[in-house]
Amino acid sequence: MRFVVKKFGGTSVGNIDRILEVAKQVAAARNRGEQIVVVVSAMAGETDRLVKLSYQVTENPDEREFDLLLSTGEMVSSALLTMALNALGYAAESFTGRQVGILTDSVHTKARIRKIDGERILHALEQGKIAVVAGFQGIDEREDLTTLGRGGSDTTAVALAAALGSAVCEIYTDVDGVYTADPNLVPEARRLRKISYDEMLEMASLGAKVLQTRSVEVAKIYNVPVLVKSTFQEGEGTMVTRADAELEKVVVSGLTLDKNQARLTVLGVPDRPGLAAKIFGKVSDAHIVVDMIVQNVSEQELTDISFTMARSDGKKAFALVHEVLPEIGARDVKLDGKIAKVSVIGAGMHSHSGIATTMFAALARENINILMISTSEIKISCIIDEKYGELAVRTLHEAFGLGNSRDDELPEGC
Amino acid sequence: MRFVVKKFGGTSVGNIDRILEVAKQVAAARNRGEQIVVVVSAMAGETDRLVKLSYQVTENPDEREFDLLLSTGEMVSSALLTMALNALGYAAESFTGRQVGILTDSVHTKARIRKIDGERILHALEQGKIAVVAGFQGIDEREDLTTLGRGGSDTTAVALAAALGSAVCEIYTDVDGVYTADPNLVPEARRLRKISYDEMLEMASLGAKVLQTRSVEVAKIYNVPVLVKSTFQEGEGTMVTRADAELEKVVVSGLTLDKNQARLTVLGVPDRPGLAAKIFGKVSDAHIVVDMIVQNVSEQELTDISFTMARSDGKKAFALVHEVLPEIGARDVKLDGKIAKVSVIGAGMHSHSGIATTMFAALARENINILMISTSEIKISCIIDEKYGELAVRTLHEAFGLGNSRDDELPEGC
Repeated sequence: MRFVVKKFGGTSVGNIDRILEVAKQVAAARNRGEQIVVVVSAMAGETDRLVKLSYQVTENPDEREFDLLLSTGEMVSSALLTMALNALGYAAESFTGRQVGILTDSVHTKARIRKIDGERILHALEQGKIAVVAGFQGIDEREDLTTLGRGGSDTTAVALAAALGSAVCEIYTDVDGVYTADPNLVPEARRLRKISYDEMLEMASLGAKVLQTRSVEVAKIYNVPVLVKSTFQEGEGTMVTRADAELEKVVVSGLTLDKNQARLTVLGVPDRPGLAAKIFGKVSDAHIVVDMIVQNVSEQELTDISFTMARSDGKKAFALVHEVLPEIGARDVKLDGKIAKVSVIGAGMHSHSGIATTMFAALARENINILMISTSEIKISCIIDEKYGELAVRTLHEAFGLGNSRDDELPEGC
Repeated sequence: MRFVVKKFGGTSVGNIDRILEVAKQVAAARNRGEQIVVVVSAMAGETDRLVKLSYQVTENPDEREFDLLLSTGEMVSSALLTMALNALGYAAESFTGRQVGILTDSVHTKARIRKIDGERILHALEQGKIAVVAGFQGIDEREDLTTLGRGGSDTTAVALAAALGSAVCEIYTDVDGVYTADPNLVPEARRLRKISYDEMLEMASLGAKVLQTRSVEVAKIYNVPVLVKSTFQEGEGTMVTRADAELEKVVVSGLTLDKNQARLTVLGVPDRPGLAAKIFGKVSDAHIVVDMIVQNVSEQELTDISFTMARSDGKKAFALVHEVLPEIGARDVKLDGKIAKVSVIGAGMHSHSGIATTMFAALARENINILMISTSEIKISCIIDEKYGELAVRTLHEAFGLGNSRDDELPEGC
């Protein structure tokens, strides 16, 4: 019997009609002979409602209580979906994170899974039942409820697929796969039939909000094939899997645009060891995640250091750095909140020359100035003026020929 | 240190402002030196919302899933109240039924508590924390979530008070105590300062919806004093406690009116053994709870049997009995859905003569016809035409002199 983990996101279970529809889909899969574990998110809007309640109580909600509060959203949707399956005549049972045996660390609101017991689920499957799991949650050693961070149900699903030995982890969402670029920006954007874990990681972390980054990390470690599909329409979806010979043929897989960016530039920093550490120590102590860092070539023993972060952290970082200016002897600090990051991603990139040149030339043709550049094995990112973001994506999509079908290069049925 | 269990009902935590107000009250009690376990219900309306969701999924929701669904309501309110206490600077920790260690049987939707571990709560109290418990819920041996039935948070509170050895269990609600009659019906109705467990049991089961009946049973078994008070206004409330010499002095404590009643009369039943069993077997198999049963003296070997039940069960019971009419050889069955039950309650009643006479005479003076009568050690109930319900309560309240202060008979400070 083919054993499959299926995850349905918040939009897919967003109201009772949709829950009934999901139940029918799961029942149909069962009829096809699949052994099924379903993982559900909270009904769309429910997590936001709970978050809002807690912020009405206090600006600074206790994180242990916050986790208990938020974890109820997934309990509700798992109970409702299980009822729907039972009402259709299918034996089904819901499982909280605790009942699954998802043991996490104690870092509330962004806990990491340490171990999955899964014994009760396996027992239910043996009895022919469909197991419906409340995503996003676990328990720590003290048996306190923990949550895995926004999008954490993806991670629950992939981790369960890994722990239980599922053939595939199917992620049902409101898009029908992973695209070469955001179809809202680039009408010619194409759905990818396959993408490697590493490419997907770059896509996910750069703002293609299809999968939670950590779920892809887990999938990569345990080599779990993840199929991203639409809940609402038929289609093959996109298979996220390990890089193989076919994938290597492809140079650029996709483009992403991230407008949630701010840049801080520290001007006239003396070129002495330890000063960068002072600046970034201050920033990371405040739990601000720094993304790109660029230090210009020093002239006259003074250098400029620029770095980017989430836009919401910009003002806080500015204040922190401003405070240490005298200590490090820098001249000034400037905040630029109107920037965007456009990235080209492709697993084949590191063995192909000319990608960066193509990218820079395409942007230059449209008179888009590049403010910062950062490269990795499988991506090149440029910081540009926010207002050119959409234009840049469209231009690059054409420059790399992404509108041409990549599917043609792949054998059928892969 | 005085150790107190305080329970706040759904209206008391009905919105964020009220949760903040409850947090302040708990904090004030803490400042007075109390060691506190708070038990909370779901926010008013939340349980109804969840019930409605489940009935949108299916007419017949699976009870195990129903319990998981409903138990989230109390998790939400316990998390929010704990956040509020922490925000006020008081160390507090929430506890689910599972974390408290409330072990129940597996009768979903109306589970009974078997055992309370309470170790984690005691540990939290030792650390100087305020424990906030999600009421209404427990777990069974399989570690599945169970709920204790509507109003079950009262039972959680009283059972915790018994298990942990609390000096008193304070029930905060939207009324300021237990009254001699419903003040909406009888403006002269007085708040009782004290009432015995047995009287309260009759009051509760007869429709004075202040406390869940089972919570009073538990309080009686473990001799836990229960103080019913208003969340929203100052006042001494009503102490529910065991009957003592002072209470014995009082004959009638209060009156109740229950309009949620229907009566079925089976006419012309042959006076043979086994036929009553046949009728009530059929009815109880359908989980219909029968309240009063009256069998008239038989004439000519035919008898009439009347019984009452919740009005919502009336039609179902009618259909069931109608079905067995040929089998038992009875002539006909009649349903009367427009009746009410008015009851006089008092622990001193069984040792006083004349109570019934006073009651019947008072009703007769107002030309109120009595359809059925039932008596117990501490109560007399009469079934009357529904339209006379309010008049009957007012008449009896005056006839028994309940408007006169009973407090005067009690020593100060009791």
